[in-house]
Amino acid sequence: GRKVLIVYAHQEPKSLNGSLKSVAVEELSKQGCSVTVSDLYAMQFEPRATKNDIVDCLHNSEEFNYGLEAWEAYKRGGLSNDLIEEQKKVQDGDLLIFQFPLYWFSMPAIMKGWMDRVLVQGFAHEFPNCYDSGLLKNKLALFSFTTGGSKEMYAKGGISGDIRYLLWPMQHGIMHFCGVKVLAPHICFAPEYASEEERKEMLIAWAQRLKTLWNEEPINCSPEWYFK
Amino acid sequence: GRKVLIVYAHQEPKSLNGSLKSVAVEELSKQGCSVTVSDLYAMQFEPRATKNDIVDCLHNSEEFNYGLEAWEAYKRGGLSNDLIEEQKKVQDGDLLIFQFPLYWFSMPAIMKGWMDRVLVQGFAHEFPNCYDSGLLKNKLALFSFTTGGSKEMYAKGGISGDIRYLLWPMQHGIMHFCGVKVLAPHICFAPEYASEEERKEMLIAWAQRLKTLWNEEPINCSPEWYFK
Repeated sequence: GRKVLIVYAHQEPKSLNGSLKSVAVEELSKQGCSVTVSDLYAMQFEPRATKNDIVDCLHNSEEFNYGLEAWEAYKRGGLSNDLIEEQKKVQDGDLLIFQFPLYWFSMPAIMKGWMDRVLVQGFAHEFPNCYDSGLLKNKLALFSFTTGGSKEMYAKGGISGDIRYLLWPMQHGIMHFCGVKVLAPHICFAPEYASEEERKEMLIAWAQRLKTLWNEEPINCSPEWYFK
Repeated sequence: GRKVLIVYAHQEPKSLNGSLKSVAVEELSKQGCSVTVSDLYAMQFEPRATKNDIVDCLHNSEEFNYGLEAWEAYKRGGLSNDLIEEQKKVQDGDLLIFQFPLYWFSMPAIMKGWMDRVLVQGFAHEFPNCYDSGLLKNKLALFSFTTGGSKEMYAKGGISGDIRYLLWPMQHGIMHFCGVKVLAPHICFAPEYASEEERKEMLIAWAQRLKTLWNEEPINCSPEWYFK
């Protein structure tokens, strides 16, 4: 069975994001996948990249450089336990699903902190092993999120611009950089302005997509996909 | 005298980011500006958007909706003190400078949390008062940051794509959305691979730019600037 890690960032289990997460757990489990959820708010996941992430002594205590210290700590097994646990989940996963409400054209800070702290050099990338040869190659990622704005606002020529513009840093800058192949995003536009019926349809559509997810081809994660 | 707020996110005062921040404080003070710094790591600024941000009772305690609760709390003066203080600094500022190292094609989580929590509806925007009529109009913003990758990697056709692609969510999606006019970004490429001499030149160039900053015209914050 395939292994799936769902990194989930919503404060409220009753939210649409909470339901989308539950639908994914249910549908993927039904398929025989083993599903793990990192429920970031419930875990009170720490988003700040600080000295606390390095449990033994620093490589250079005179001038703290987070990226270098985390890299060195990774190599000698000196990262904090919460990071080691998340890295194990990532390592085990065939597919990473990120489920969140869009905050300011991006993911909520708690999830950005997961990216900042978990995907350290040596573990997820190590020059020149980045992009197609990133250390997490052979994995898939999928960004599933809800928006405040409508589909029209996020259309090409809409006031907020093509939704693909804002996917570039997340899909290309993070996942592709680590070698992860990216499936098409799953977007629920403006659920707060949708009827109960329409919200139900959003859940059904997600479950439906997950049924044939393993047959999907990744997107071509290059500027053409985003900005053409 | 003009008022400047510098929102600064680096763990190490001796870093280039720390020096860039100090250079800005010095140069702008010399001009007669009053400068305030929010040193996010030193403040141990909370990046997570949770119920703790609403100090009195919730509008809907059955189903927690952060955006709605923060909006309601703002209107009745019920936001947590750290947010009220940051909002005062923003309100007073003519210019907001964001100084940070680029983490994953974006700002570090601690700064993203500042955006998520401080720029609440009612304070920074309130439909239809967004984009050119956002509630923070008549203010300026400037993103000043360092990168890991080189200028060549962030060129059009480079492996990481035009650096402007990743500025879209920050400059357009956040600042422009709130009505803030955006000055050209200030970017120091790959200081970790630069000589001591080159790093000094980076500081001088920043001080130099600040001397005539108030004469600069904002960029045209539309898709053409980013993706042409």
